[in-house]
Amino acid sequence: MKSGLSFLVGALRCEIDELEQLARTSELVATIGRLVHALQRERGISNVLLASRGQRFVAQRDAQIAECLRQEQAVRLAFDQLDAADGRIGNGARLFSRIAWVLPGMDALSGLRQRIGALEIDAAQSTAAFGKLIAGLIAVVFEAADGATDPEISRLLVALFNFMQGKEFAGQERACGAAAFASGRNDGARQQQWLHLIASQEHCFELFADFAAPGLAEVWGSVQAAAQLAELERLRRIACAAPAGVALDSELSQAWFDCCTRRIDAMQAVEERLAADLRRLCLHKTTQARSELQAHQALLASLQGGNGTETADFFLDAPAAPDAPAGGAPYGRQLERSILDMVQEQSRRLQAMGDELDTVRAALNERKLVERAKGLLMAHRRIREEEAHKMLRQTAMNQGRRLVEVAESVLAMAEYLPVDKAP
Amino acid sequence: MKSGLSFLVGALRCEIDELEQLARTSELVATIGRLVHALQRERGISNVLLASRGQRFVAQRDAQIAECLRQEQAVRLAFDQLDAADGRIGNGARLFSRIAWVLPGMDALSGLRQRIGALEIDAAQSTAAFGKLIAGLIAVVFEAADGATDPEISRLLVALFNFMQGKEFAGQERACGAAAFASGRNDGARQQQWLHLIASQEHCFELFADFAAPGLAEVWGSVQAAAQLAELERLRRIACAAPAGVALDSELSQAWFDCCTRRIDAMQAVEERLAADLRRLCLHKTTQARSELQAHQALLASLQGGNGTETADFFLDAPAAPDAPAGGAPYGRQLERSILDMVQEQSRRLQAMGDELDTVRAALNERKLVERAKGLLMAHRRIREEEAHKMLRQTAMNQGRRLVEVAESVLAMAEYLPVDKAP
Repeated sequence: MKSGLSFLVGALRCEIDELEQLARTSELVATIGRLVHALQRERGISNVLLASRGQRFVAQRDAQIAECLRQEQAVRLAFDQLDAADGRIGNGARLFSRIAWVLPGMDALSGLRQRIGALEIDAAQSTAAFGKLIAGLIAVVFEAADGATDPEISRLLVALFNFMQGKEFAGQERACGAAAFASGRNDGARQQQWLHLIASQEHCFELFADFAAPGLAEVWGSVQAAAQLAELERLRRIACAAPAGVALDSELSQAWFDCCTRRIDAMQAVEERLAADLRRLCLHKTTQARSELQAHQALLASLQGGNGTETADFFLDAPAAPDAPAGGAPYGRQLERSILDMVQEQSRRLQAMGDELDTVRAALNERKLVERAKGLLMAHRRIREEEAHKMLRQTAMNQGRRLVEVAESVLAMAEYLPVDKAP
Repeated sequence: MKSGLSFLVGALRCEIDELEQLARTSELVATIGRLVHALQRERGISNVLLASRGQRFVAQRDAQIAECLRQEQAVRLAFDQLDAADGRIGNGARLFSRIAWVLPGMDALSGLRQRIGALEIDAAQSTAAFGKLIAGLIAVVFEAADGATDPEISRLLVALFNFMQGKEFAGQERACGAAAFASGRNDGARQQQWLHLIASQEHCFELFADFAAPGLAEVWGSVQAAAQLAELERLRRIACAAPAGVALDSELSQAWFDCCTRRIDAMQAVEERLAADLRRLCLHKTTQARSELQAHQALLASLQGGNGTETADFFLDAPAAPDAPAGGAPYGRQLERSILDMVQEQSRRLQAMGDELDTVRAALNERKLVERAKGLLMAHRRIREEEAHKMLRQTAMNQGRRLVEVAESVLAMAEYLPVDKAP
């Protein structure tokens, strides 16, 4: 039969297991970030190519496709390693299910590229296709953040997830603007979508700043050079504030693309810093837990045979009974008390961690609300996920509300939206 | 490189792992329930012994101690099996840490029994000691419920936890009443505590009824025979409504003990039913997931080599490209669509399960609030956990509020309660 101390050791082993798994998923998340970054750039380049009817960015596109293939390979490798890893992954079923969803999308990329190269689809279709795959990849990051069991690591993963999501809105803005400038015109619907993309990315960056370490949030503030921001805002104004239908100078498409790309590349640098912070934190926590484990194990080994010594004052604070075993040399009454204290201390620490984790995870709730609202619409209207998402987004744009607010309204109206049971 | 389908299989394997671990923890919970039941009875018997200065229940106590030792052995065995089990336990660190806390308490039981037998402690001290160990055992059940990853199983575990907690309040009421009747007097403080125990158990049974299957809640209603309840209420009235200090007929202690014991034994029967439901549900879900896994694996084996066939319409709803591989005989376009549908279906199912799980777990929130408030008081006042709990409970009794309401007030006042940093 095992003693309390051996379960304390067991609890620490569980923590170490979880930390090692978090280290693996954190690596995966960083790798996904690089693929997303490459795909975002390919999307922007493809849009210029499509909008210019194959005139611009042919060579850039070839180079970018090669970069995407490299990053895709790295992600596939990381997926495989995750699957082969010993031990269960936190949130494994959902994480794997998201990966299962994303892999066919990666397989289908070559077909998509062929159609783009042959100018068989337009910029909007291409943007939607890349957006779908990127959304799937970011959903993998979301599950990694939602499955984290350490509050500090979870905090960084939530920051990273929001940063990636914000960066994706910035990438969509680049693609949206690239298409508008290259085609030489803008319209009301696109302007509205554009403004929505700006608001959405700002919201994500606020959440990022809430959860990232203060130093990193400052880095993010400083990489957005004032001159660069001014240029971005000038181009935004030209395209969005002009009356709908007015011609845009198509020569600005290069300036727009370069300006956005500099900003997004700077974001990528912040993301790499975040990923490095995450790696360091995982390592630090694992090392800490390991040395604690060693101390516990050493104590356990030296107590072997002295079973029961640690229970002296579980029930009563009375002085030690005179017949308490003297045990192996240095373990007197002081130690007995200290083992009980260790157990209580560990319980308190885990409790506090759990509370903090609940708080951090609450920040992921917005996305869950949106997913739930989508599910409701899909069941009610018998529509596909993309359509449901589009409906929510359209309503948000029309009403000038945030996506999550619309989702909350939909959920609040749930009883007025019976599931459509028609065949 | 692995395909999407193989990660779908991986996701199912994770689910099966989790279900098997849930089956193990569910067994553990049932075993703990039996030990708690035995300890509750020993506590009641011990109180009669102590209050009667060793005159009553000597033989019953010996028999009950033997029963407790049997159940204790079963729990220790279940703890060891849990530790030895392959694979990670959901919520492992916290679960193991609770077990680590409880084991020294079990080790210290023989010392406690010696002191009781020698009449060295009084009924209040004995009640507190048993209560401390039982609270620790119920905390293990709480972590098992909080760590469950399947909403239906989690629902039953939440029902079971609340039932056990309610039963423990009923057990404390039995002990409290036994001491009052056997000593032949009652006082204001004890009356107040008694009424609080009645209110607390009713609250727990309401929560149980919310989460148990409707059939079981009815069983619970029906085992509380009207005649038996009437007798219980009559004895409660005699002891609680009488002016404080008035003598109680000590001959009623046997009637009180028997009446409470019949009721608590009936509770134990309900608890066993709940545990059996839980076992059945785990088995059913595991079988279901296994057969799904087999179907997926068969599909995966037959697709081996036909890599990429499942991706036909990831991006576009256009008809299949003419160059889509014809693949192994029966897998045409229909199947390709069905695999993508499977992935989407699984993600939706996991999403819905996650939402439902959040809802069920919210029911555990009350306890978490109380724990958090206790932690705050311990840090602020530099007091032990028992003292903090006593403070909260006393405030609740004085103000006629529920424990969780007092905890919420304490947490709301957190900033007025700075942590005491004095040495």
